[in-house]
Amino acid sequence: MLEIRRLKTSAPDFCAQLDALLDRAPETGAEVVRAVDAIIADVRARGDAALLELTNRYDRRSVGHAAELEIPRRACQAAWDGLDASLRDALEQACARIRAYAEYQKLQDFEFTDAFGNRLGQRVTALERVGIYVPGGKAAYPSSVLMNAIPARVAGVDEIIMAVPAPGGELNSAVLAAAHLAGVDRVFSIGGAQAIAALAYGTQTVPAVDKIVGPGNAYVAAAKRAVFGRVGIDAIAGPSEIVVISDGNSDPDWMAMDLFSQAEHGEDSEAILISPDAEFLDRVAQSMQARVRGLVRADIVAASIRERGALIHVRDLDEACAVANRIAPEHLELAVDDPRALLPKIRHAGAIFLGRHTPEAFGDYCAGPNHVLPTSRAARFSNPLGVYEFQKRSSLIECTPEGARPLAAIAGRIADAEGLQAHAQSARDRS
Amino acid sequence: MLEIRRLKTSAPDFCAQLDALLDRAPETGAEVVRAVDAIIADVRARGDAALLELTNRYDRRSVGHAAELEIPRRACQAAWDGLDASLRDALEQACARIRAYAEYQKLQDFEFTDAFGNRLGQRVTALERVGIYVPGGKAAYPSSVLMNAIPARVAGVDEIIMAVPAPGGELNSAVLAAAHLAGVDRVFSIGGAQAIAALAYGTQTVPAVDKIVGPGNAYVAAAKRAVFGRVGIDAIAGPSEIVVISDGNSDPDWMAMDLFSQAEHGEDSEAILISPDAEFLDRVAQSMQARVRGLVRADIVAASIRERGALIHVRDLDEACAVANRIAPEHLELAVDDPRALLPKIRHAGAIFLGRHTPEAFGDYCAGPNHVLPTSRAARFSNPLGVYEFQKRSSLIECTPEGARPLAAIAGRIADAEGLQAHAQSARDRS
Repeated sequence: MLEIRRLKTSAPDFCAQLDALLDRAPETGAEVVRAVDAIIADVRARGDAALLELTNRYDRRSVGHAAELEIPRRACQAAWDGLDASLRDALEQACARIRAYAEYQKLQDFEFTDAFGNRLGQRVTALERVGIYVPGGKAAYPSSVLMNAIPARVAGVDEIIMAVPAPGGELNSAVLAAAHLAGVDRVFSIGGAQAIAALAYGTQTVPAVDKIVGPGNAYVAAAKRAVFGRVGIDAIAGPSEIVVISDGNSDPDWMAMDLFSQAEHGEDSEAILISPDAEFLDRVAQSMQARVRGLVRADIVAASIRERGALIHVRDLDEACAVANRIAPEHLELAVDDPRALLPKIRHAGAIFLGRHTPEAFGDYCAGPNHVLPTSRAARFSNPLGVYEFQKRSSLIECTPEGARPLAAIAGRIADAEGLQAHAQSARDRS
Repeated sequence: MLEIRRLKTSAPDFCAQLDALLDRAPETGAEVVRAVDAIIADVRARGDAALLELTNRYDRRSVGHAAELEIPRRACQAAWDGLDASLRDALEQACARIRAYAEYQKLQDFEFTDAFGNRLGQRVTALERVGIYVPGGKAAYPSSVLMNAIPARVAGVDEIIMAVPAPGGELNSAVLAAAHLAGVDRVFSIGGAQAIAALAYGTQTVPAVDKIVGPGNAYVAAAKRAVFGRVGIDAIAGPSEIVVISDGNSDPDWMAMDLFSQAEHGEDSEAILISPDAEFLDRVAQSMQARVRGLVRADIVAASIRERGALIHVRDLDEACAVANRIAPEHLELAVDDPRALLPKIRHAGAIFLGRHTPEAFGDYCAGPNHVLPTSRAARFSNPLGVYEFQKRSSLIECTPEGARPLAAIAGRIADAEGLQAHAQSARDRS
């Protein structure tokens, strides 16, 4: 029997109840931070020796030489060749769709001329080398490899380095196959904070990268926070989330399974359905009770729904949008007849799935947009992973001798006010 | 007498010498982190009471009520009205130019239809509320207010909150005037880690924001790192840097003052000139000895040049570009006849100043591009501050009943391989 939380916006304490449900921005324990700081310092100081020692300890391995941590490209090719043909075909189709979408995301140069004849602009270049972290063990997903590597490749990154731990020496062959498909350049079977440290600072074997992307556990997240600034990072990933808004005319069975598709990720996943139709919410709850029975991961789903699930009754769809904006979810389904009418009312969501025939699961695998999305309300301020995360901009300024004069006057005057004499003189040298 | 470091790429240990000069990514001491963590916890727990106490302690103030920490809008207006007319005019011209450039940076929506009739796209929305941190004291610059606030305004941010400390109760009137000009909505005279904590978590008086931008000291930087994830942040700002590449035909006096314009920022600023002409480097060194004498900040300049300055002799301009890329400087001047010929060889730089009539100081104030730029080699992976930092993207996916079927097959197959049964079922419900 699933425990399903029911909330309604008409309750006087609704906002407090909702906030209590949402209040779980990833907070890292002090012990994790201390352990991670020590690991990073060790890898910085001792390089390969530390990386090897930590990998053998935490991943229960007995690797003799750091060079053996690298997975040869032929192993990825062999993993690809060994995949079931139907899976190869599905991954190839997903890859093509992810790439097609990513092409639209490329940043553009611009240039223009000001009134004085000076040229101003922006030039876009790709990062040189990026690191992709892929979790090992039970959450080792080939789809994550595609979602992280393809935008980097489209951006024009020179070299993509993948880190994936091999607990007990075990590697997921579908993950290696996906690395082959996506064009990852080098793969290392390393994980945890030691992998992040190796990627950020480099060791004798692992080259230092310019940016590290990809999800991971609390140690990986803490390590990414620690190396931020030395390298770029994408985001601190939190548990997965879905919010579904339905008008009440959706198939309750579809709604139940859409909620479960997030809930099955883990016990801290969040799955929320919002509707103005209370009877519909009842029917979805009934379907959830029925459909959970057939699931292999029923225990995880039950825990997730109990801890982080909710069916929320609202006055109308406008209020549903307001509640969704407050949640700022990673994924938002608009299961209504006219989703385009609701869209302008949605301000904060990582990905928006419009209409009843667009389940969130399409976005996880093959719709095209990235499945790495802002979590824990970060959709208020951050972006899906995309090509733009692997590009950067340089500003361009080019003055003519004549065009420099008016700028020298403006810059000189403000520099005077700021007491920066050399700035003022450097500007006025050109007047 | 200035101490000026001379390096040449032909020396066998050049790379080691250069790396030693550059190796100063901001590292935060453990005591700073502990102090900042305590301050953040205090402000989260006690809100206004903690903010008031910490402000009175660290800024040597005696404010009785948190509400008094807010600077009324009429005070900013009065500061503007009280400015010298020539400074008002210069700031207005700078503002117009910064805004004109920022307009080019707005992110764009896109949408397209796939082969199955599904719609895929990206929608751009502005952040709701952002916080701008402006350092107080000697480094309180009106230009920083413009550079941080104008892109946010252009992005369409609903509310801009500025935090600027008032050490000893002193506020820089040009900073308040700039806040008026740039359209900042609310100003609080708070600073340090307590200001960052207040902006990230909100207090009874200070509203919580979605993103915090702007430079600050080690405590501010550590606090931004700590709250990253709860809110967005721009970057961890390091000391200012300039690299100048000259062919040897530049005016040595201009070169000297361009280097000084970075060096005067602080003793940890970095100023490097690269040229294939050794005699030209001698002449610049002579000019530096002469021109430093007239500077009010001669002591800071001398310390900066001694610790972080260098004149680097290279074989040719190609090698100059390679050295510049290795440095990945915040600012790069190409003081040559044909800067466009060198541009394709430059991969990493925050802002590029083309030609002899484009001193870096123009970029600090009025050229148009932002003066908040990646430092400490972050130009390898990050961007100038811009409108795009105040916008965010949501992915859009809208399937037709027919278009959903092929996606259901692909998603179902990959979900099977990942052992995510509810994902597979949710997808196949639509087939």
